[in-house]
Amino acid sequence: MRIRIDVAYDGTDFKGWARQPGLRTVQETLELALVTALRVPAVRATCAGRTDAGVHARGQVVHIDLDPDDLEGSAGRSADPPLEALARRLNGILPPDLRVRRVVEPPEGFDARFSAVWRRYAYRIADESPDPLTRNHVLGWGRPLDIDAMNAASRDLIGFHDFASFCKKREGATTIRTLLDLSWERVDGVIVGTVRADAFCHSMVRSLVGCLIAIGDGRQAVSWAGEVLSGQDRRAVTVVHPHGLTLEEVGYPADELLAAQAAGARKVRTL
Amino acid sequence: MRIRIDVAYDGTDFKGWARQPGLRTVQETLELALVTALRVPAVRATCAGRTDAGVHARGQVVHIDLDPDDLEGSAGRSADPPLEALARRLNGILPPDLRVRRVVEPPEGFDARFSAVWRRYAYRIADESPDPLTRNHVLGWGRPLDIDAMNAASRDLIGFHDFASFCKKREGATTIRTLLDLSWERVDGVIVGTVRADAFCHSMVRSLVGCLIAIGDGRQAVSWAGEVLSGQDRRAVTVVHPHGLTLEEVGYPADELLAAQAAGARKVRTL
Repeated sequence: MRIRIDVAYDGTDFKGWARQPGLRTVQETLELALVTALRVPAVRATCAGRTDAGVHARGQVVHIDLDPDDLEGSAGRSADPPLEALARRLNGILPPDLRVRRVVEPPEGFDARFSAVWRRYAYRIADESPDPLTRNHVLGWGRPLDIDAMNAASRDLIGFHDFASFCKKREGATTIRTLLDLSWERVDGVIVGTVRADAFCHSMVRSLVGCLIAIGDGRQAVSWAGEVLSGQDRRAVTVVHPHGLTLEEVGYPADELLAAQAAGARKVRTL
Repeated sequence: MRIRIDVAYDGTDFKGWARQPGLRTVQETLELALVTALRVPAVRATCAGRTDAGVHARGQVVHIDLDPDDLEGSAGRSADPPLEALARRLNGILPPDLRVRRVVEPPEGFDARFSAVWRRYAYRIADESPDPLTRNHVLGWGRPLDIDAMNAASRDLIGFHDFASFCKKREGATTIRTLLDLSWERVDGVIVGTVRADAFCHSMVRSLVGCLIAIGDGRQAVSWAGEVLSGQDRRAVTVVHPHGLTLEEVGYPADELLAAQAAGARKVRTL
């Protein structure tokens, strides 16, 4: 039996999603809570977007597989449906910086990672007045940013490209991606960048943002983003701090396409 | 020479505004930074709203008095105007949870506390999905709140009343206030309560919110707020947690009325 778990976390005190020996990670914290809540020896959680250390999530999607009997057993005497009871139990066990938003049984063929068709991230920047209340997830920037310039430069990056210039190199991994959205707006005094793609290579969002901030504060011309993309300018792009970055939402196809999407994506990644 | 300093702070790790021996307070932290920045033996900071432990501010207003020579001396070799240089120096000294938003010379007769004609607070509640990213300044509430009921009840409280039922008693202090605004709306999934009054007695905002939450989640009828106000129901209102509360803005009259307002307010408080 497969279960979909939507989670949100403040990444400040996590060393990212993926388990690492001796470090506090989202995966380990969630898996340990599941072990306690379900009274099973082990659980393996798979997520849609393996966020780096310091990166936050409001819309991370996770799946686990379990024995239906374990779920029934864990509900105890709760009158709630078993999955709602599980969500409540998990939130009773988890620390305040990791919350379960919902637990549901997904349609047949669902895979949190491989069924996903896009991931949407937000990058938040305060370039006007500093706000200590949101300093955990908004980057403070000392100089005013020109978001018209950032939007103009962003348009050169949207589409199907080889994003090698914006990716940390990894042996055998493709850097070809489809960037679906990249845009900037001011919301209540905070600059919010929206970045949506089928998938991201390592540190790609933070490199894209680093490039666009350099354009926004006037250190580089609007044309620079396109030049970096095409490899005409090989000067390294600055990878911005992780704490301004939040995984906001993961997109999945219609129910009947979930399995096919998963099969296709799994094939691409293992080529 | 009087200086106006607008500050913002995350109240989580402060024991409120007012200095208390051995405790970390906003006043002491700011005054010590001013002493360092201005190279003077002592500075006395006066604020518009003395927030309680755990309460935040985005629009706190402070004034200090200093010798113009000390200001010139502190600017050092900076090419910036002295007050901008002071703001920058202060932010270099202050911890990340206390930020200076601007430093200006106010009009003649300005007094951060006594010239103020109103204080506006926001109280934020998440009754749907928990958001760990904003948990420092948004109260999590496990049950859905009916904001129409909360707004209907709030209308019974607006105006010139004796708010004794909502105030911690203090010897000789008046509890008569003019509540200018009290309303609730959902903004991006968070319930935001706006509370604006000429001034507030001790724990008044948090008592008003506690009363309205009890109405919003159905434990009390809409009429209860008015009954508490008129003293018909003497059951104590719950004072909600401070961490959902933020001082957002302080209102001042037109420049030529600042001194008269200050003189009038000072008279009322000392009666």
